Amino acid sequence: MPDLTPLLAFRWSPRAFDPAAMLTGDEATSLLEAARWAPSAGNTQPWRFAFGHREDDTWKRILVSLPADDQRWARHASALVVVAHTGGDPERAAYDLGQAVAHLSVQATALGLHVHQLTRFDRAGLATELDLPVGIRPTVVVAVGRLGDPFALPEDLRDRETGLRQRRPLADLLLA
Amino acid sequence: MPDLTPLLAFRWSPRAFDPAAMLTGDEATSLLEAARWAPSAGNTQPWRFAFGHREDDTWKRILVSLPADDQRWARHASALVVVAHTGGDPERAAYDLGQAVAHLSVQATALGLHVHQLTRFDRAGLATELDLPVGIRPTVVVAVGRLGDPFALPEDLRDRETGLRQRRPLADLLLA
Repeated sequence: MPDLTPLLAFRWSPRAFDPAAMLTGDEATSLLEAARWAPSAGNTQPWRFAFGHREDDTWKRILVSLPADDQRWARHASALVVVAHTGGDPERAAYDLGQAVAHLSVQATALGLHVHQLTRFDRAGLATELDLPVGIRPTVVVAVGRLGDPFALPEDLRDRETGLRQRRPLADLLLA
Repeated sequence: MPDLTPLLAFRWSPRAFDPAAMLTGDEATSLLEAARWAPSAGNTQPWRFAFGHREDDTWKRILVSLPADDQRWARHASALVVVAHTGGDPERAAYDLGQAVAHLSVQATALGLHVHQLTRFDRAGLATELDLPVGIRPTVVVAVGRLGDPFALPEDLRDRETGLRQRRPLADLLLA
């Protein structure tokens, strides 16, 4: 790892979250503010959010939309956040949502929190459960929390938790 | 602005870049490393990069692909970077590229640099100019540099440079 700012260098996507930790209202707001101030093409700001704190109604509705496999660990997250887009060009909106969630994640790291994004979930079911307006399309679920004990994870998840992060070498990514 | 980490709070997209500033090799590498370590769905890492330092061949090829209107200010950027995707689901790839460019931008801020993203450019012409492999699709051009004198900008750009950043209120973004 080269000299990256610690807010990027220490970011990773855990499954071991502390089941006792809750987010304060200020923490939740600052995560959403980070996303809100992300750049977007033509300042369209195509992002919308549903924020659930553990055990509240929104959180429960988001949790049950996840695959059973992921519910095993996501149920310990302090917050589950749906990030949805408002339509328009889907590729352009997806790009801007990626930026907004990246900003949210950087802010989470600054608060000592960790983020794990989930792209596999029941989009139609969640839209119904949350009574989302027509045209609002859930794109990603973001689990946020404090790091927990990896040995409290089911064994198959524990092994993935302790593996090193891997990326393609930079040379393979350069076009010119 | 609430209590955001300075790396997000002080980010904005200027047009006034310092025409004398160049990036060091280490700076360029750390920007690309930041992008490389961004998260992606299933760790697909669909991002590819063409990095041009001012006045080199890659930089010139990227510059001429921009609208004349934007070339007026982008020609003072220290670097112009094409971020392209490798295909697959275009929406999913766009989301991951948004994250990678957001990470690059956070690292730029950490280095005292600024970033301005451009989504309007001649994609087909640039793919030809850079001799991109089939299936590699340029998504965004990222201008990176040090802040310059806004009074050196053409008058119409100067007015936009000094305007306040605007976003929708958070309450308008909440679904639940």
